[in-house]
Amino acid sequence: MVSSSNSPAASKPVAQFYYELLTLGDELLLGLTANGHLTFVGAQLGRRGVTLRRNITITDEADAIVAQFRESWSRADVVITTGGLGPTCDDRTRECIAEVLGQKLVRNAEIEASIEARFERLGRKMTPNNLKQAQVFERGEVLINANGTAPGLWVEQDGKILVMLPGPPNELQPMFTEQVVPRLAARGLLTEREAYVQIRTSGVGESALETKLQPIFDRFGTALSIAFCAHSGHVDCRLSSPNGQLDDPRLRAVAEECAALLGEDFVCYGHDPLARVCADLLRGQEKTLACAETASGGLLANSFTDICGASKFFSGGVVCYSNESKMQLLDVPECLLAQHGAVSAENAVAMATGAAEILGADYGIAITGFAGPCGGTAENPVGTFYLALHAPHGVWSKKLNYPGPRTTVKVRAVNAALDWLRRELVRAGRGAVTAPLGARQ
Amino acid sequence: MVSSSNSPAASKPVAQFYYELLTLGDELLLGLTANGHLTFVGAQLGRRGVTLRRNITITDEADAIVAQFRESWSRADVVITTGGLGPTCDDRTRECIAEVLGQKLVRNAEIEASIEARFERLGRKMTPNNLKQAQVFERGEVLINANGTAPGLWVEQDGKILVMLPGPPNELQPMFTEQVVPRLAARGLLTEREAYVQIRTSGVGESALETKLQPIFDRFGTALSIAFCAHSGHVDCRLSSPNGQLDDPRLRAVAEECAALLGEDFVCYGHDPLARVCADLLRGQEKTLACAETASGGLLANSFTDICGASKFFSGGVVCYSNESKMQLLDVPECLLAQHGAVSAENAVAMATGAAEILGADYGIAITGFAGPCGGTAENPVGTFYLALHAPHGVWSKKLNYPGPRTTVKVRAVNAALDWLRRELVRAGRGAVTAPLGARQ
Repeated sequence: MVSSSNSPAASKPVAQFYYELLTLGDELLLGLTANGHLTFVGAQLGRRGVTLRRNITITDEADAIVAQFRESWSRADVVITTGGLGPTCDDRTRECIAEVLGQKLVRNAEIEASIEARFERLGRKMTPNNLKQAQVFERGEVLINANGTAPGLWVEQDGKILVMLPGPPNELQPMFTEQVVPRLAARGLLTEREAYVQIRTSGVGESALETKLQPIFDRFGTALSIAFCAHSGHVDCRLSSPNGQLDDPRLRAVAEECAALLGEDFVCYGHDPLARVCADLLRGQEKTLACAETASGGLLANSFTDICGASKFFSGGVVCYSNESKMQLLDVPECLLAQHGAVSAENAVAMATGAAEILGADYGIAITGFAGPCGGTAENPVGTFYLALHAPHGVWSKKLNYPGPRTTVKVRAVNAALDWLRRELVRAGRGAVTAPLGARQ
Repeated sequence: MVSSSNSPAASKPVAQFYYELLTLGDELLLGLTANGHLTFVGAQLGRRGVTLRRNITITDEADAIVAQFRESWSRADVVITTGGLGPTCDDRTRECIAEVLGQKLVRNAEIEASIEARFERLGRKMTPNNLKQAQVFERGEVLINANGTAPGLWVEQDGKILVMLPGPPNELQPMFTEQVVPRLAARGLLTEREAYVQIRTSGVGESALETKLQPIFDRFGTALSIAFCAHSGHVDCRLSSPNGQLDDPRLRAVAEECAALLGEDFVCYGHDPLARVCADLLRGQEKTLACAETASGGLLANSFTDICGASKFFSGGVVCYSNESKMQLLDVPECLLAQHGAVSAENAVAMATGAAEILGADYGIAITGFAGPCGGTAENPVGTFYLALHAPHGVWSKKLNYPGPRTTVKVRAVNAALDWLRRELVRAGRGAVTAPLGARQ
C-alpha cells in the first residue's frame, strides 16, 4: 500500500471513504445522452467495496463548475469528474478546477504530439483548438487516453484525490479500469478484489428468489448482507459480509449452497451475460452454433459476436426478413410459409434446422415474431414470438408473448432464446438430453 | 397564464427559471439501474425551453435527504424529486421533505381506497405498509398514479414549486407529461412548444464543425445560443435563442443555412439515428437493401430492424463468421478467400454483391474486419475493417482502422457503413452517381 501526505489517510475501511462523482455536460441535463458514467463508475466502485455517496450533474457554465467543485472538494475524499476536457469553447472543466485548486495549467509537448499524430492517422485536418487538450496541471499526473485526444488527469492535493476523465465512454471506461482503479487500490481506497459474491439467476422473479433462498440466509443473521437486482432476462443476488464476519471462502460456500438449491435457474457467479455463459458451455463441449432471426433482426447474432474469439463456436447467422430470404438462405419450403406463415412454430423449426444444416453447426437457434408496434394478427398479436432450438438430439419450439416497445421486446426475445440454449447445454453437459421443460416437440 | 402568490413570479423568460432534479436511490449510485429519470426529465424540460440546472443523486439515508433537499429548496425555483415514495422502510422522501417544509402529513382516504382497490384487482393481499403511500402533504395537490400505488405530490410554497414523483419509469413518465408539464406551462414556467432546432451531422469532428459554422453564428451574437454534442458516428449542434430574440422561423432559417453549408455532412434535423435516415432515403427512392457482416456480427442488421416496418426496405442480412458460411450463403469463391483472406477489400466486395444478389436487393453493404482484442495480422491489425457498398451503378470498398474495445469498434464500423450508405443515397437521389469520395473502385 502506497501512501502519501497528499492522499487521504488510508487507515480506515474502504467503505468509509467519501467518493463523489461530478458529471459535467449540458447534454446530460438536456437528456440528449444518458448518464452512463454514473452507472459505470458507481458499479466499478460498488464491486470494490465503496458506495458512491453523491453524483452531481451540472451545466458547462464556468461559475457553476467552480462553485460545485469547491463544495465537492471540501466534502469528499475522492472527487471524480467526467466531461468538459474536449477542444471546444464549452469545455471548461480543466480551467475551472485549476482555479479552485490554485494550480497552473501548462502545455504538455508529448500530448500535443500525440494529438497531432492521431489526426494524421485518421487523415483529418487538426484545428488549433484541439491543442487546448494538451494543457495539464502543473502538479499532477496524466492518464493516457488510448482512444481519443483528451488525456485524463490525476491530482493528489489537500489530502484528497481528484480524478478527471474525458466524457466519451470508450475513452473513460478503459482509462478508469486500467489506470484509476489500480492507483486507488494501491492507496487503500478500494478493495483489490470484488467485495461481494454475486449469483446470477434466470427464470425466477426477484421475490420468489428471495423466498426460495431465505432459509439459507436466515442461518447467518446480520453477518450476511443480501441485495437483489432485477434486469431484463435475469435477477442478480449479491452476498456480502459488511463487517467481515464471513470471510471469502465462507461467503463463497454460502453462494455455492444457493446455486445448488437453484439448479438450472443458476446462471453463473459474477457478471457474465447469458451469451457468454452459452459460449463457454459450447466451447467446453466443443460444439458450434448457428442462428436465424426475423423479428430480433441480428440482435441474437450480435450478442454472440460481442465475444472475442466467437468464430470458435459461432458458425454464423441469418437475418431473413423476407420470405424469399428464408427460402434462399435457409431452404425453408415455400409451401410451409404459405400454409403456416412466417410467424409460426413450423417456420421457427425450419429456420433453426436450416441454419444448423447450412452452416454446419451442432446447434441452431431461431427467433421469429412480431416486434411491433405495427404488424401482428388476431392469432399472433404484436409481441408474439416463436423460438426454435435445433440440437443434435432433436428440435423443439416455444411460443412467447412480450408487451412493450419494439427494442425492449427484441431484447426479451433474445434473452429467452439464450436462456433456453443455456439450459439445454447444461443438460447436455450432464448427459441429460430429454426435451427442455416447457417445450413441445 | 395562471399566477399565485405561492408560485415563482412568472414574469421572466422560462429559460431563467432554476430547475433542479433530485434522484433518490442507492441502486442509482451502485450502478445497478441507469438514471433514466435524468434523461427523461431533462429532455422533457429541454424541449420546452428550460435547461435543467442541476441533478443530484444521493443515497436513501434520511439525513442526506433532509440536508440535500434544504439546500436545493433554498436555491431553485422548481425542485423535482424522484423515488422514495413506496411502501418499504427505505422509502423516506415524503417524511424527510415534510420536515424541511414544516408540513404535516395527513391520511388521504381516497388514495387509501384506490390502493386497496388496486390490490384487489390484481388479486394480491395488501400488507399494511402500503397505506403509508396514502400519506399526503396538508397543503399540496395529489398527482394521480394511473400505473401504480404511490401518488405524486405537487406543492406550491415559499414562492417555489415542488414536484415529487414515484421511481418506476412507467409511473413517473405519464404522470410528468400528462399532469406536471401542463401545470408548469399554465404557470409560465415552460414553453408550450419545442424551443430549439437541432442539426445532426456526420463526417466532421466537433471542433471542425464549430470552426466551419462560426461565421454564421457570429452574425447573431448573443441572440443565438449554440450547443454541440458528439456521439459515436455523429455530432449534434443545437440552436436556440435563450432570450427569444430569434423567433422559430428565424431559427429554422439559420439551421437551413448551416445545413446548406455542410452539404453531405448534414444528416438531418432532430434526433433520427443514421439507420433511420438511410431507411427514409431507401423508402423514398423505392430501393431495398441487404447486408453481410463478419466482425460487426449482426449489429448492422439490427440497426435496420430496430425500425418498425423494416421489411419494406430491408431484404435481410447474413452474419458469415466462417469461410464456409461466406461460400455457402453468399457465393464468395473459395479461391478468393484463399488468395486474399476474409479480411480484405476483395472479400468485402464479394460479400456486398453476394448479399444484394442472393437477397434480390438494390443495395448491398458489407463489413469485414478484426474487432479484436484477439486476431489481426501485420497487414491488417486489430481494428482494421473493410467496408463494401454495392449499388445499382457499381461497387466500392473502403479500408478503415478504429482503436478501442471490441463493442465500441463494432459500433464505429457500423456507423461508418451507415454514413457511407446515406451519402450514396443522397447522391443517388440527386442523380449524382459517381463513386463516393474516399472510395476506390
